[in-house]
Amino acid sequence: MEVELEEYVGKILRDIRKRGIEAVREYSERFDGYSGDFRVSEEEFEEAVESVPEGDREVILRTVERLWEYHERQKPKEELFIKNGSLYGLIYRPIRRIGIYVPGGKPLPSTLMMVGVPARIAGVKEMAVTTPPKDGKVNPYVLYVAQLLGIDEVYKLGGVQAIGAMAYGVGMKKVDKIFGPGNRFVNEAKRQVFGVVGIDGLAGPSEIAVIADGSAEGEYVLADLLSQLEHGRESRAWLLTTSRELAEYCSRDGVEVVLCGTLEECAEKANEIAPEHLEIITERPMELVELIENAGAVYLGPYTPVPAADYFLGVNHVLPTGGAARFGGVLKVRDFVKPVSLAMVGREEFLRERELGIRLAEVEGMELHRRSMEVRR
Amino acid sequence: MEVELEEYVGKILRDIRKRGIEAVREYSERFDGYSGDFRVSEEEFEEAVESVPEGDREVILRTVERLWEYHERQKPKEELFIKNGSLYGLIYRPIRRIGIYVPGGKPLPSTLMMVGVPARIAGVKEMAVTTPPKDGKVNPYVLYVAQLLGIDEVYKLGGVQAIGAMAYGVGMKKVDKIFGPGNRFVNEAKRQVFGVVGIDGLAGPSEIAVIADGSAEGEYVLADLLSQLEHGRESRAWLLTTSRELAEYCSRDGVEVVLCGTLEECAEKANEIAPEHLEIITERPMELVELIENAGAVYLGPYTPVPAADYFLGVNHVLPTGGAARFGGVLKVRDFVKPVSLAMVGREEFLRERELGIRLAEVEGMELHRRSMEVRR
Repeated sequence: MEVELEEYVGKILRDIRKRGIEAVREYSERFDGYSGDFRVSEEEFEEAVESVPEGDREVILRTVERLWEYHERQKPKEELFIKNGSLYGLIYRPIRRIGIYVPGGKPLPSTLMMVGVPARIAGVKEMAVTTPPKDGKVNPYVLYVAQLLGIDEVYKLGGVQAIGAMAYGVGMKKVDKIFGPGNRFVNEAKRQVFGVVGIDGLAGPSEIAVIADGSAEGEYVLADLLSQLEHGRESRAWLLTTSRELAEYCSRDGVEVVLCGTLEECAEKANEIAPEHLEIITERPMELVELIENAGAVYLGPYTPVPAADYFLGVNHVLPTGGAARFGGVLKVRDFVKPVSLAMVGREEFLRERELGIRLAEVEGMELHRRSMEVRR
Repeated sequence: MEVELEEYVGKILRDIRKRGIEAVREYSERFDGYSGDFRVSEEEFEEAVESVPEGDREVILRTVERLWEYHERQKPKEELFIKNGSLYGLIYRPIRRIGIYVPGGKPLPSTLMMVGVPARIAGVKEMAVTTPPKDGKVNPYVLYVAQLLGIDEVYKLGGVQAIGAMAYGVGMKKVDKIFGPGNRFVNEAKRQVFGVVGIDGLAGPSEIAVIADGSAEGEYVLADLLSQLEHGRESRAWLLTTSRELAEYCSRDGVEVVLCGTLEECAEKANEIAPEHLEIITERPMELVELIENAGAVYLGPYTPVPAADYFLGVNHVLPTGGAARFGGVLKVRDFVKPVSLAMVGREEFLRERELGIRLAEVEGMELHRRSMEVRR
């Protein structure tokens, strides 16, 4: 099945690379039932934006403000230092041009906020948004968010053909890195174009784990567990608890309940799962944080439910899934910049220390590396 | 050709996933001509380490110290803040277990230093090193570096089978992320296991671009250009210069010379190339830095040749190649840790602001997300 998906997506991508816009048009017609211009026009923008009610604009504006305030603190500064007359360190440069995929199924204006805000703060100059059209149109909320973030390049393109178009520069300028979640076809396409362009990570079905003790309000815990199952049939929800009563209260279809002897056991179980989201609703949640190694996000106490983080807290909701929290983390401003290694070595330091490099080049059999160090006076 | 490589590597990986250690043994015999135990024994360690001359141990020790001092400054600290009675921010957790691939062709002890030092500083607890054996043995310098870094898990495994063994946990415990350069088979294997495990990036042939004006010493510039061509036939070297004399001096096989009208033009050309290494050897090199957007590393002045950075400066020599500097950067301590999003929201703040989340959940049609926010009192 996995191999089939790989081959299926690979074939479409190769076809797009070979036949360009013609292939994109064909797939777009076949999969999205769409055959008009891809780029959303100024008129369409205006029309859509006007259709968003005043109150909803206000909600989006306030949410973007909260996201902005949170992410602004993440902007990296130069990390330079001088030692023995030499300058060393890292400087940061924004990625020039990115692509953002906004899934179609449920219109997700929040996805565009979560990716667009840190990108803007990082200083990314060009952003292209692709999203599958519905009845030939892009969701007006998505267009309103785009406008708010100063993005005027939005394309009615979904699925594998959207990823191919962004990665190979078909019907648009090629992007440098692709962000945003999608279904398994979109994810497989992102995986396959990795290397040609950068990608933010691979997003799978949503996951929640809740560590809770007897002090937790059953109603809250259950509501949180069920909320993440709403994303789709493949989503998962775990309750890790020391309370038999809570375990029973939350036992139902889709919820995986693990009864543990101690909260420390719950924490170790969470580390094994490496869930996208981990809520800790216990008497003293802070005391468990140091035991958590693998989780995309950790939310403490009864007033930090995952949906609050998904929407309005200001934190980023793009998180590693499917165990990827073992090696990856939450989306942040640094994902939109590149660290560049900078060095300017002083003459004295170079001449004094080069014997180290010369010997290592000898050991590795790199004659011309040695020469480059030896030739200097 | 690319498709063939993909299929060839894919077939080997699927076979390893299916047949496990038996398949790894077969490929190891076929490609490395090796059929003994994979893990390097204590005796082999001791024997090899003793064979490294005293003087060379000292060279390696001093180099590791320089790397340690440089990378120690990169260790990220918690980034937490309190706002409206709520706690937000990022905390960092080391990756539990990593795999490091050390290529065989030319024995590269420096690769292991470059990956192992930041990993140790990050706090990674378990490291497994794989490297193809030569005449059934691992290079003693590689084993000495391993010992110095406290790594006792070294495997005589090369190529696709090494990547497969680390990613799927065959003949060893599965790793969480794989680091280190390799040939095109190793790179394709890393690309294909991405998602199952994390990877550090895809390493291609070495590249150097030099921006130089008439003030640059021709002999230095030429030696630096040629040094990177030594890595292999696919390596590339560009000279971007305003000096006709220098252009002529450096014109020879393998060096791509671009004569520009101004240094600003040289900088823009460098951004188009997005080279792994960029040297700036001009009268006032610092004045060009702000124009550079795409480069893995920027080395300024006549005493910062790439080979010095490759071996002894203390900076990291694992850098993006093949244009990947458009979206990726130098290896650093942060590549060995994961940012975990942490939040603990206050009751007042939650109750005051939840209307934003509730409305957005409505817009996106997420009924159970709304319920999780509404249920709280």
